[in-house]
Amino acid sequence: MANDKKMVDQITSMDEDFAKWYTDICKKADLIDYSSVKGCMIIRPYGYAIWELIQKNLDGRFKETGHENVYMPMFIPESLLNKEKEHVEGFAPEVAWVTHGGSEPLQERLCVRPTSETLFCEHYANIIKSYRDLPKLYNQWCSVVRWEKTTRPFLRSREFLWQEGHTMHATAEEAEEETIRMLNIYADFHEKDLAIPVIKGRKTESDKFAGAEATYAIEALMHDGKALQAGTSHYFGDGFAKAFDIKYTDRDNKLKYPHQTSWGVTTRMIGGIIMTHADNNGLVLPPAVAPVQVVIIPVQQHKEGVLEAANALADRLRSRFRVKVDASDNSPGWKFSEYEMKGVPLRIEIGPRDIAEGKCVSVKRYNREKNFESLENIEETVARRLDEIRDGMYEKALENRQRRTYDCTTLDEIRDSIKNGGDGLVMAMWCGDEECEDRVKAETGVGSRCIPFEQKHISDKCVCCGKPAKHMVCWAIAY
Amino acid sequence: MANDKKMVDQITSMDEDFAKWYTDICKKADLIDYSSVKGCMIIRPYGYAIWELIQKNLDGRFKETGHENVYMPMFIPESLLNKEKEHVEGFAPEVAWVTHGGSEPLQERLCVRPTSETLFCEHYANIIKSYRDLPKLYNQWCSVVRWEKTTRPFLRSREFLWQEGHTMHATAEEAEEETIRMLNIYADFHEKDLAIPVIKGRKTESDKFAGAEATYAIEALMHDGKALQAGTSHYFGDGFAKAFDIKYTDRDNKLKYPHQTSWGVTTRMIGGIIMTHADNNGLVLPPAVAPVQVVIIPVQQHKEGVLEAANALADRLRSRFRVKVDASDNSPGWKFSEYEMKGVPLRIEIGPRDIAEGKCVSVKRYNREKNFESLENIEETVARRLDEIRDGMYEKALENRQRRTYDCTTLDEIRDSIKNGGDGLVMAMWCGDEECEDRVKAETGVGSRCIPFEQKHISDKCVCCGKPAKHMVCWAIAY
Repeated sequence: MANDKKMVDQITSMDEDFAKWYTDICKKADLIDYSSVKGCMIIRPYGYAIWELIQKNLDGRFKETGHENVYMPMFIPESLLNKEKEHVEGFAPEVAWVTHGGSEPLQERLCVRPTSETLFCEHYANIIKSYRDLPKLYNQWCSVVRWEKTTRPFLRSREFLWQEGHTMHATAEEAEEETIRMLNIYADFHEKDLAIPVIKGRKTESDKFAGAEATYAIEALMHDGKALQAGTSHYFGDGFAKAFDIKYTDRDNKLKYPHQTSWGVTTRMIGGIIMTHADNNGLVLPPAVAPVQVVIIPVQQHKEGVLEAANALADRLRSRFRVKVDASDNSPGWKFSEYEMKGVPLRIEIGPRDIAEGKCVSVKRYNREKNFESLENIEETVARRLDEIRDGMYEKALENRQRRTYDCTTLDEIRDSIKNGGDGLVMAMWCGDEECEDRVKAETGVGSRCIPFEQKHISDKCVCCGKPAKHMVCWAIAY
Repeated sequence: MANDKKMVDQITSMDEDFAKWYTDICKKADLIDYSSVKGCMIIRPYGYAIWELIQKNLDGRFKETGHENVYMPMFIPESLLNKEKEHVEGFAPEVAWVTHGGSEPLQERLCVRPTSETLFCEHYANIIKSYRDLPKLYNQWCSVVRWEKTTRPFLRSREFLWQEGHTMHATAEEAEEETIRMLNIYADFHEKDLAIPVIKGRKTESDKFAGAEATYAIEALMHDGKALQAGTSHYFGDGFAKAFDIKYTDRDNKLKYPHQTSWGVTTRMIGGIIMTHADNNGLVLPPAVAPVQVVIIPVQQHKEGVLEAANALADRLRSRFRVKVDASDNSPGWKFSEYEMKGVPLRIEIGPRDIAEGKCVSVKRYNREKNFESLENIEETVARRLDEIRDGMYEKALENRQRRTYDCTTLDEIRDSIKNGGDGLVMAMWCGDEECEDRVKAETGVGSRCIPFEQKHISDKCVCCGKPAKHMVCWAIAY
């Protein structure tokens, strides 16, 4: 068990230094590495395998709802970026500029895409002519670049991986439906597959995407009481269509502007998994995106029949689960802590006595629950345990969020709640005035995260000015 | 049939203008579109779906052979690119340079990766310490940028999609084995799945990858008699390891340099599919990478039971094949030419008389072979037809290559062969002298493509200087 202790000691405790705990996990669970490219990260095989599982799951959901994948150039000519005024103002300050090709200066500089609305719009102007061409439901998996000053693995880096959906519809209603449909897909994926409870809502005017008419987001509460925006879906109306002169002939033979959406999630979700589920022993992965769902550790593996039994068990499980047997020379204790660090959802131990009794031991990573399992029907048992793990992880995260959600009616209540209960989500009424929104942040520290779809009546009055309230807003310190 | 004629007329004939025929297919089969980003292309849903099938197939083969995917930053600091001298000399003239982040100039300019050897090496220097860390078998799917002057969709563009494998091994032997293993996987994929016969061989010294000790390639013959380099695999020895100070402690406790490989294939393969299989009616896709493998066209679809029968047939086939029913209002003739243009391997027609007789008609895209098929066991029949299509396409391409492969013993013979038989592959002996290699090209037009693994004895003497020959070389005009 000496080894076990040694590994765990390598992580800073969450309570001591949350930021360091976070980066320790990113490094020690072999998710990322740094390089001489400042502000960018290397996603290592274990981290990338999580991303591949995320991609596969979401890509399936996108295709089921009629979306098609495309690939656009990674560069955007400056003149193209400039076509939609609000959009360029939002992004120009944080893009990387290519100015030379080989040894020659370019006639027009190109930015590395921070997002691809402009490219999609230029393409849509080419290919959308008639109502028969609508809707267009495109998605792209790629990397984008935003020249951030302060960066953290997965949460904020100069280059990150994402998907960006860009769709065009005949009517505003259809486009609005699409915006919400995709937000719901993101929410469902987070809750069912990542076991992360989310709050769906609309962003306030001040927090909208550059060029959007409405931005919707899902927000999740992290271990440290801060909120993470985990996915966004934007409704653009026909603003870009007008700027890019995208028109279609409708059934009534009139020329009309189509209505547009875009929506995206990024590798940031991996940061969300860490800060929702991980603990002081390392990563804790939800089964749906765990590269290894079940690790089998042979105990007293030098004894006759142990390795064979472990491998036979793995063979039985392999058709349904991602399984690994660790038959290396390391001690079982070292292995236990290694796979705890890696966040493998279920550990199975099997030794001579278990084999004699037709049994094995299963241990859940997230709560260390230990069960003696019959080897009969072990496939069904493992399936049930993994379901229990997903459900248990979700419940635990939901309880944490409920415990740290404060309904407040005054700025003092907000300050007191945070002071006594720690950072968390504040639910409080708002008059809709941007000045109040700013004052809440300036005076209490929490900013508006979204106007939740599920509204609660906390009081009649704005938490800030006392005038009649329009919405309940979710406020928090955000990543 | 009027519509049929109209669509087919839109393609330039291959014999009239091969380059235009090629780009016509790229555009009319909805594979790509252009944008205001010069030298880059938009890969449209149908083209991208082909790429996804290519990726899925190859990724499976890579993982089966123990490779893991990672993601490296897209930028390379100039100082890092400069670390390996030959490598930087090869790539610096054709990279895109990022010089500004937001409004500020960067302290050190960054190139957009043209390939990622330098980044992998920097990372490997961090993570390889002991023989236990070897081999490292990494692969990356990403886009890369090379600032080409003249560009053509899929064949040569400033940005393209590819995979780049980068592996590190304890010994030279292991690394050499890996280099050949991956070349073989590329060759097998081309022959079995893309139905493209390839010649495996080693590049001459003058044609090696910048920084490699040996470069291996697969070469394929295109419709116009030119050769396409369809995939490459490089053996680096320990050159980069020394430049990047990558060392490991071996079992004998001595510090050693590991040996390295890299290998890659790109979206260029889609260009290879077009120029090997397509015809004057459009694209012809091999079943393995066809987004739609079987299109079902209802004939007299307004008659009772026809659409139902078409859909029932699709339902039966869907679990095993990628199937589409086109029940649109367009005429059957229009649909026939549309799916010929798109290269769908097998068309099934089903009308009232077929239904009454328990039959349907199948038509192979590549040779228009028509068969009356019983609806009993149609799943097995379709599987057999698709296999026949793959085999037939391969045989057709192989025959074409054999017909246009010329064994030559003098420069005059080379010139005459090309003049009389058209461009093609020339097999001729070579003394190994670079001067002769250059002279063959200058005097006949064909350059050395590779030294095929399968050597034939054509004569004892170099085709150029008449001195004793070392190798048979495959020569051709190349893309």
